[in-house]
Amino acid sequence: MAWMKKLGRASVIAAAGGAITGYIVANDKKKTALASWTTGHTPSVKWDWNWDRREIHSLVKPSKHKSDVNNNILNDNFEDRMEKVRPTVTATRHIIFIRHGQYNLEGAKDSDRYLTKLGREQAALTGERLKCLELPFSRVVFSTMTRATETANIIMEKLSGVEEVESCDLLREGAPIPPEPPIGSWKPEMHKFYADGARIEAAFRKYVHRAPSSQEKDSYELFVCHANVIRYFVCRALQLPPEAWLRMTLYNGSITHLVIRPDGRVGLWQLGDCGYMPPEKLSRT
Amino acid sequence: MAWMKKLGRASVIAAAGGAITGYIVANDKKKTALASWTTGHTPSVKWDWNWDRREIHSLVKPSKHKSDVNNNILNDNFEDRMEKVRPTVTATRHIIFIRHGQYNLEGAKDSDRYLTKLGREQAALTGERLKCLELPFSRVVFSTMTRATETANIIMEKLSGVEEVESCDLLREGAPIPPEPPIGSWKPEMHKFYADGARIEAAFRKYVHRAPSSQEKDSYELFVCHANVIRYFVCRALQLPPEAWLRMTLYNGSITHLVIRPDGRVGLWQLGDCGYMPPEKLSRT
Repeated sequence: MAWMKKLGRASVIAAAGGAITGYIVANDKKKTALASWTTGHTPSVKWDWNWDRREIHSLVKPSKHKSDVNNNILNDNFEDRMEKVRPTVTATRHIIFIRHGQYNLEGAKDSDRYLTKLGREQAALTGERLKCLELPFSRVVFSTMTRATETANIIMEKLSGVEEVESCDLLREGAPIPPEPPIGSWKPEMHKFYADGARIEAAFRKYVHRAPSSQEKDSYELFVCHANVIRYFVCRALQLPPEAWLRMTLYNGSITHLVIRPDGRVGLWQLGDCGYMPPEKLSRT
Repeated sequence: MAWMKKLGRASVIAAAGGAITGYIVANDKKKTALASWTTGHTPSVKWDWNWDRREIHSLVKPSKHKSDVNNNILNDNFEDRMEKVRPTVTATRHIIFIRHGQYNLEGAKDSDRYLTKLGREQAALTGERLKCLELPFSRVVFSTMTRATETANIIMEKLSGVEEVESCDLLREGAPIPPEPPIGSWKPEMHKFYADGARIEAAFRKYVHRAPSSQEKDSYELFVCHANVIRYFVCRALQLPPEAWLRMTLYNGSITHLVIRPDGRVGLWQLGDCGYMPPEKLSRT
């Protein structure tokens, strides 16, 4: 983990800045003048600090008594109770998404759409990279589709100490939302968007959020799934229009790294990293 | 270049779909019903096909004579003249951005902010990766700041056959636009955004656009510059809110790959790829 410590100033600024700014913005509506000229600007779209419904105010139950509101007691109680919650939200979540390896496109049903020889090699290379990065993964979640499950299994052979391993139907490939701009050659049926869209959004809400207040230290979690799912998650997590997901492309086996700070700030550190693969192993199918 | 041919179906679909969809949408307003259910959806934001003012209609001069409009002659002429332009826009531009290597943060003036030993190693590793990818770079443009110029020089030692090499002040680091969400620890002065913002936008308009109609084959161009510049360019090129630029982080020496199709469709293939660097060489300062 020595290399993590070396990441230096940018990392510290991002972390500290995130925490400080977030606290002021999120926790004290009176102090919105941040220590930066940047706040003099009116952005075209505002960041929603409570995007995952885990903003610190959301963790405190509102008062039960209407009379409290009328007598202006609510706010005092609220601040008091919030003080007890505040110190517990301190951990950063590192969420690493892996796209499955190349697979047999000729297969009619999922079980026939298994990894090709190249796909297995890609998964092994990704596993090697994750191993040498020495990220202390505590959890691996993989889509139940054959190609994702196989990819996860090959990667897990390289990792040790993962406490929690689970598969999940919510992470299966699908059509998250009609892309903008549309693409004429990709034609999922209308009911696919209807069903897959809600299911992939459900996966996002389940897995992509800031750490719970019970989490004491930074975590590293691995999600092995699919290109459409990952691209949609990236747009949603960064609060970009989700229709933009098809403006990104992911290589097979590639690494996408999201960082979620305790205050709800989200950073994309990498999208589609596969530089550890020799050029002849690259594919995007 | 053998690996490029192997990229397979996704690549072909993206290219062909891009061309077909774009043509229908951009060139014939009557045929907006695309061959996809996706077009039944009303997106929250629309893709602007003429974002770089090089959409095919823009390449044909409007008629000089008002009487043509009244007599409905304009449209006929316009279509005739457009036919002559259409076949010439066929090339795809691959734009590869490199962030400079780690540099001496203690330096007061630019010339003292030179690459560290690690920064030079990062640049060499990036050069090696680009060399082994065998991308046929025709052009290298680098920021005139010391750290970017040094990085470009080290990379160019690894590349051969680059015809066009130039430096550019427009690509220097700066404060492109106040970020949303704001970050309290980063405090450029207000006039920085005012001056840098227009200058970095000027750089975007100069360098990031679809191929000109005179370009006959796909091109690969390298731009060696800075984190803020690259992140802002990515947001602008993908038509995402530019205020979102600080939601991304780039490792030193990392590769960001944008692909611009003849019809103006833009794809992000990678952001911040540095998987070819051993973990102990990674930094983000």
